[in-house]
Amino acid sequence: MNYPMIFYILSRVLQFQGIFMALPCITALFYREHVGIAYLIVMAGSLLLGTLGRYIKRGQKGFYAREGLVTVAFAWILMSLVGALPFVISGEIPSFVDAFFESISGFTTTGASILTDVEAMSKTGLMWRSFTHWIGGMGVLVFLLAFLPMTGGSDMYLMKAESPGPSVGKLVPRIRETAQILYGIYIFITVAEVGTLLILGMKPFDSLALSFATAGTGGFGILNSSVGAYTWGQQSAITIFMILFGVNFNVYFLFLMKKPKQALKCEELRYYVIIIVAAIAMITANIYTCGVYSDVREAVHHSAFQVGSIMTTTGFSTADFNMWPTFSKTLLVLLMFIGACAGSTGGGMKVSRWILLFKSCKNELGRTIHPRSVHRVHFEGRPVEKNVIHSVERFLVAYILVFVTSCIIVSLDTMDFTETFTSVAATLNNIGPGLGRVGAAGNYASLSVLSKSVLMFDMLAGRLEILPMFVLLVRGTWKD
Amino acid sequence: MNYPMIFYILSRVLQFQGIFMALPCITALFYREHVGIAYLIVMAGSLLLGTLGRYIKRGQKGFYAREGLVTVAFAWILMSLVGALPFVISGEIPSFVDAFFESISGFTTTGASILTDVEAMSKTGLMWRSFTHWIGGMGVLVFLLAFLPMTGGSDMYLMKAESPGPSVGKLVPRIRETAQILYGIYIFITVAEVGTLLILGMKPFDSLALSFATAGTGGFGILNSSVGAYTWGQQSAITIFMILFGVNFNVYFLFLMKKPKQALKCEELRYYVIIIVAAIAMITANIYTCGVYSDVREAVHHSAFQVGSIMTTTGFSTADFNMWPTFSKTLLVLLMFIGACAGSTGGGMKVSRWILLFKSCKNELGRTIHPRSVHRVHFEGRPVEKNVIHSVERFLVAYILVFVTSCIIVSLDTMDFTETFTSVAATLNNIGPGLGRVGAAGNYASLSVLSKSVLMFDMLAGRLEILPMFVLLVRGTWKD
Repeated sequence: MNYPMIFYILSRVLQFQGIFMALPCITALFYREHVGIAYLIVMAGSLLLGTLGRYIKRGQKGFYAREGLVTVAFAWILMSLVGALPFVISGEIPSFVDAFFESISGFTTTGASILTDVEAMSKTGLMWRSFTHWIGGMGVLVFLLAFLPMTGGSDMYLMKAESPGPSVGKLVPRIRETAQILYGIYIFITVAEVGTLLILGMKPFDSLALSFATAGTGGFGILNSSVGAYTWGQQSAITIFMILFGVNFNVYFLFLMKKPKQALKCEELRYYVIIIVAAIAMITANIYTCGVYSDVREAVHHSAFQVGSIMTTTGFSTADFNMWPTFSKTLLVLLMFIGACAGSTGGGMKVSRWILLFKSCKNELGRTIHPRSVHRVHFEGRPVEKNVIHSVERFLVAYILVFVTSCIIVSLDTMDFTETFTSVAATLNNIGPGLGRVGAAGNYASLSVLSKSVLMFDMLAGRLEILPMFVLLVRGTWKD
Repeated sequence: MNYPMIFYILSRVLQFQGIFMALPCITALFYREHVGIAYLIVMAGSLLLGTLGRYIKRGQKGFYAREGLVTVAFAWILMSLVGALPFVISGEIPSFVDAFFESISGFTTTGASILTDVEAMSKTGLMWRSFTHWIGGMGVLVFLLAFLPMTGGSDMYLMKAESPGPSVGKLVPRIRETAQILYGIYIFITVAEVGTLLILGMKPFDSLALSFATAGTGGFGILNSSVGAYTWGQQSAITIFMILFGVNFNVYFLFLMKKPKQALKCEELRYYVIIIVAAIAMITANIYTCGVYSDVREAVHHSAFQVGSIMTTTGFSTADFNMWPTFSKTLLVLLMFIGACAGSTGGGMKVSRWILLFKSCKNELGRTIHPRSVHRVHFEGRPVEKNVIHSVERFLVAYILVFVTSCIIVSLDTMDFTETFTSVAATLNNIGPGLGRVGAAGNYASLSVLSKSVLMFDMLAGRLEILPMFVLLVRGTWKD
């Protein structure tokens, strides 16, 4: 194991974390809030320790997949730890476990909160909470790769370990440029959302905080009603931007390269849109006919918002869908397991994984019926290599393993079966709200420390797509 | 498609079905029940039509996997249809949908019932219900293969399509002898159970009916309290026999061949026992500490019975586990998805499939960490071929597809999320009772015709391990 290089990268992560903390510090200055001191302390500490780390002797040892996975896992744990400190120091979340939960939930863009009263928090704290979503959305290591020259092939392994989806989305041959393009698109759409919300009459603070949370598909709100208190226009704008951030960023890159035809040909995008439209239609029909809303436009509005929010794993809400009929709830729970597109900021299993799984299943069926005909799985216009499909299948198994183990442990808590099941689904898929007590109108405050710990692991496992977290737990990792 | 051969086999199935109906007819004679006439009519009709089918010209066309799958699917639908007729004719279950549901539930060894008052049924009807479990447990086509000489390689494809588990358990080189040995073991253990229950003081009728239901891992009871009203000794005997029928019959064959060492080395058996013991221990601890039972022996007794019942997919109950704490309920729901051993009469995903999935997952992890070391999945002491693992992975995907689609449709009914989820889990895994309204103290009577139809499909898909039912639905099957 190449420890010097791992420590070096972690120290750079710490340094960037210090820089990111400038935003809450500025917010504190602007609103003259005392809690800003906590952020200033952590910022100074991070910058100091991070800068010291630059002097680590990196040596000539290799940096492979194993090192990449371990580094990414540690980087995310470190980020979340440091991100939790200001909450504790400022006294806004006195319990360390709760602060750590909130910080992990932020960086992993889950949006599950232990706060019972969000509005009681300082503007500084709220801004930091929302900003962690933005940092975690595209990934801090991708950010690092965009700005730091990395040597020895470590960049590819880091990118691979942090990027969501069944295969790495290298847009251009060089990793560094890929990372820069990704962040460029990310910043551009975020700014577009802030602008749109401002035009629609939202306050600047709210626009910024909600845009950060939408961009990262996070879901932390700044009001107790999530985004229920905003105007229909503002809510609709958020619906559209949530769905935009759930799209594979390759699509935007192709638009950027002036290849709109190729961009619109994207198979994952097509299925993503079909699923969203179908779910909106079915849920609208269900909540309208069951009389939840007497106005069909209202039904469409709330259905679209909730579907966009759950499918992209954002987790905002305009309505308490816990009160909706079972059909709508079941559909929303199933959407949790589909997730957004690969190469987006969204979580979950990803649309492309399901496409590959079903195509390979259909393929097998065809082979059974007509053994002599030639069958091959195609995706995005190209034949898919077998090992890609098998790695997706194994991802599914690992995912089920984490899901089941988590359910067993969390069921020891005082929740019922639906709450247990959806709390794990909502954290492992980085969504946020589940059903019942952990639903859109509830929170995770009352859970035991054991349950919170399991769900923290699940949030990290979900965001990093399991493998990096598994690697930490396996003895073989630490043997040379 | 070799239609003549398919019709020929179906006619033989019908003939055997007629022979099987002798048992309820004898029961009716014995108890002097008028409903026996309904069984006599269906018996005569089946025998007549079945015998006529012998004169079908079979020709020289080939019989391959596709024909095998289609035949098995049709045979099970035909059996269930014919099995439902006496219920309708006798007027004991006047609704055809309900009678068909009950019959499918019987043959697929599910044990989900639409009867609100089991005790109101005639002895004849109860005996037939329980006997369908016994017929379906080992499979009617396996029975056919044991007694009829089949030519043209059709035997292997039929055996493959009906036998549960990731690979076909051919005990001896010849299919016919394998089928005979399997039925020999099956009859032997069934007789042993009847004897044991008689010795423990159970009435002959009850002993026979419950032994049929245990042997097939079915779960239809003959009392409204399932088996809650019997003595502890009788319940414990049933616990043990349920677990015995969930074991891979290969193990018994090895004992028969006087190879006990090899039998006990069976890896699937080892995991099967470990899971059962661990689940019993955890549930006992949970229900005892939560105060459901004040006596620890009582807690062990009921925990063992319920674990044995769910894990083997039988579905009997001695207690309403719907009232147990969430942890116990969650564990029981998870056991539903594991299921019994391959090559047993039990349903579910099967222990061996999960072992293969997890081993291949662990293998992948090892390969990521140490790319240069050699990794290979071993099972039952032999290296496993890659295509076996991939077919298991695809089974999992197909299984999830059926599960999810069923949940969506069933959620249109008036049940809550837990009831929707567990009704699908309990039928697709051929268990019977779920949680809530469809729980151990409830039944499936109040469901809509749409829900019942979906669950009927799921019961068949579960028993036949999905592929045969999928093949029926695919257009390619019907094209030459």
